[in-house]
Amino acid sequence: MTESANLELLLNKLSPLLGDRLSRAEAVRQHHGEDLTHFDICLPDAVAYPHSTEEVSAIVKLCHMYETPVIPYGAGTALEGNFLAISGGLTLNFSQMDKIIALRHDDMDCTVEAGVTREQLNHEIRDTGLFFPIDPGANATLGGMAATRASGTNAVRYGTMRENVIRLKAVMADGTIITTSSRARKSAAGYDLTRLLVGSEGTLGIITEITVRLYGLPEAMSAAVCPFSSLEGAVNTVVETIQMGIPIARIELIDDMLIDVINRFSGFDYPLEPTLFMEFHGSNNAVKEQAEMVEEIAKSHGGHGFQWASRPEERNKLWQARHDGFLSMRSAYPGKNFWVTDVCVPISRLAECIRDTRKDIAKANMVAPLVGHVGDGNFHLTIPYDKNNPEDVAAIEQLNQRLIERAIAMDGTSTGEHGIGLGKKKYMALEHGPALDFMKIIKKSLDPKNILNPHKIFDL
Amino acid sequence: MTESANLELLLNKLSPLLGDRLSRAEAVRQHHGEDLTHFDICLPDAVAYPHSTEEVSAIVKLCHMYETPVIPYGAGTALEGNFLAISGGLTLNFSQMDKIIALRHDDMDCTVEAGVTREQLNHEIRDTGLFFPIDPGANATLGGMAATRASGTNAVRYGTMRENVIRLKAVMADGTIITTSSRARKSAAGYDLTRLLVGSEGTLGIITEITVRLYGLPEAMSAAVCPFSSLEGAVNTVVETIQMGIPIARIELIDDMLIDVINRFSGFDYPLEPTLFMEFHGSNNAVKEQAEMVEEIAKSHGGHGFQWASRPEERNKLWQARHDGFLSMRSAYPGKNFWVTDVCVPISRLAECIRDTRKDIAKANMVAPLVGHVGDGNFHLTIPYDKNNPEDVAAIEQLNQRLIERAIAMDGTSTGEHGIGLGKKKYMALEHGPALDFMKIIKKSLDPKNILNPHKIFDL
Repeated sequence: MTESANLELLLNKLSPLLGDRLSRAEAVRQHHGEDLTHFDICLPDAVAYPHSTEEVSAIVKLCHMYETPVIPYGAGTALEGNFLAISGGLTLNFSQMDKIIALRHDDMDCTVEAGVTREQLNHEIRDTGLFFPIDPGANATLGGMAATRASGTNAVRYGTMRENVIRLKAVMADGTIITTSSRARKSAAGYDLTRLLVGSEGTLGIITEITVRLYGLPEAMSAAVCPFSSLEGAVNTVVETIQMGIPIARIELIDDMLIDVINRFSGFDYPLEPTLFMEFHGSNNAVKEQAEMVEEIAKSHGGHGFQWASRPEERNKLWQARHDGFLSMRSAYPGKNFWVTDVCVPISRLAECIRDTRKDIAKANMVAPLVGHVGDGNFHLTIPYDKNNPEDVAAIEQLNQRLIERAIAMDGTSTGEHGIGLGKKKYMALEHGPALDFMKIIKKSLDPKNILNPHKIFDL
Repeated sequence: MTESANLELLLNKLSPLLGDRLSRAEAVRQHHGEDLTHFDICLPDAVAYPHSTEEVSAIVKLCHMYETPVIPYGAGTALEGNFLAISGGLTLNFSQMDKIIALRHDDMDCTVEAGVTREQLNHEIRDTGLFFPIDPGANATLGGMAATRASGTNAVRYGTMRENVIRLKAVMADGTIITTSSRARKSAAGYDLTRLLVGSEGTLGIITEITVRLYGLPEAMSAAVCPFSSLEGAVNTVVETIQMGIPIARIELIDDMLIDVINRFSGFDYPLEPTLFMEFHGSNNAVKEQAEMVEEIAKSHGGHGFQWASRPEERNKLWQARHDGFLSMRSAYPGKNFWVTDVCVPISRLAECIRDTRKDIAKANMVAPLVGHVGDGNFHLTIPYDKNNPEDVAAIEQLNQRLIERAIAMDGTSTGEHGIGLGKKKYMALEHGPALDFMKIIKKSLDPKNILNPHKIFDL
């Protein structure tokens, strides 16, 4: 817990600065202290709503002085407890820093405040012929997406936040404001602070502005759904598509269990089989060429009945159904808690990793639908359970551990896109070995008082 | 200078370990103590030729114990004094760590020792249908390319070493061996140590193994050369091509002055005009489509007389001529020294930046041919001069300073791909502002004795 005398001193200093943008109300703290998944509630002591980088700097300076934890909060869609205030402190809610600062059409980039959401960004630039492709499903903020190195359905073609953040403005532990790089598309001028902060989950600096790449809207976009008679067939279609270098924009696997749940939630009638959701971007010719090649590959692996969706409303409906996977699960299992996990492996090991994981699930007699950005080798499980049932918890923890150990043994990672947060700290040593010590050295050097989102990623 | 008692103790320990792979011969030290450009000779005290990561670790442990500088050396093609032993110490020459450790066709990646050169790699994988696209011109080692965040002619399509290094094995300042990440295509598991080491020029850790992405050889490749009646026309063709999102594989600008030099060196008879060298990769249809679009754009900007080179030998000859730019200059200006510099700006400012730079060159009445990876906003000057003529030196330093200040003012960088080394340290504060302090904090925390390639990128 935060040392309470310090906390009072801090809040006394912050109050005149922020007025009613500083709250200690129970409901507000509650809202910022629980997440969508299986973590225990952890309330911050107070919540602030900054309006500018300078204000964040002033706040962090005070937190530094009073050695109080400070935790950035975007849209609250993180899945590994990444924003929970496990040692109290001050949560910074970025919802009032939601301006697009600059849109540079000729450079195909834009700079936004950390609280801008990806849907808002795409809405605001809809008439420019440009779009921002990174799509983790949830309508996350760009600040949160940068901090957790988010990716999602389009990453197979456009990359993750790692590849798409050009530069950041961030407030460091002592309140210093830095800009991590120029806007040049490449540079060899010193250490890559941009990519050091991307994925650091608010533990090295608090991201306040993000400059991201934008892309020209493709001439043609076409989506398709294809069911397979076996999961292996679907996975092998993905593997072969990637290995042939076909620049598919999205290729998502949804297993039969989740198809059923989605059908019931969204009113679709997809066959109850493992299914690939795909999207192709490019010139009219390129899209046609790509789609034909993938259809051919799919057929040779037991894919049958490609359904096309080329009109925007059809495509949107299809992707909405895909994105509603988690909501569908909540609707199908009312009153349940949910454990969400993800891993990512080299594509050559994907079929084997999914096969062995499904065996584990069957053996544990568990409901654990599988969905994934399989073009990257990344997949998720969403497991309904009862938080208060120790047997449920033990069974899931065991399954999760086996999943992660399997992924790491296959030269993969304990998390492709959800981050470490609280949930995966215990696997950091297994995944990184001696490299973990150097991450800790960096954390200690940049945040010697350990005030920036403490106890996330690893403990010191 | 290295404290000589320590040095003797170190060499006494290293000698039984390395035998004749440890040299203090004057000629060997000389070879490692001078570069291709304008820096003063700085000899290391000794040179070692390690055979394995474990051996590098043993050597670095001893250097750590005896507080002796240790400097990695690849092919010696760096241009900003990046490997010069300015405070003596031990240079590690990686030429005997030249094995391809693993080629994983299904994952389209491979792991190589740091001394493997890019030409060697492409030669050894020539029958696999895969290739490694990053091409800085010189036949650099992968270790050197990773350490300096190299890029080159193909970066406009395939990215730089930043995007193409999957993971690294490195020896840290205390001799600890780390692996920076898994081989998964994406991960959200902790700090991005891979990209922290890429571009750190050997100052944070010594890279011993590199895992890089490979790409499928495109179905079709076609190159073209197109002269323009004005430099502006050529630059604007590039800008428009990029802004239209045409996935051109290479688009290089060579000014009329360098065309003349190349013609004389390589026996071409290109018109003495600013010229674009281009390459297109993709399916037969895609290449045709892209090429037609670019030809159309070029025509509208005064481009005339596209010459196509589709046969491999023609293409190779064309790119050899481009890569021989520096050799051509050496041949055209025998006895001269050469000052080489590069900057990179957002594409929207490229035409203006090149125009103002050319004005500066004209005003200074200087020979300074301009060549560039202009699709990235990156260009170079190669300036023949006389090292011993203080007026020459002063004039070039002034031109270089104006160039860099201009690039930074345009939200660009002091170096797109050559790195900071010794040559551009003085611009780090201007480019990075307060962020530079955090780079120094990281350096001090990871290398507290300052033994890893000291005095490069910045002074402490």
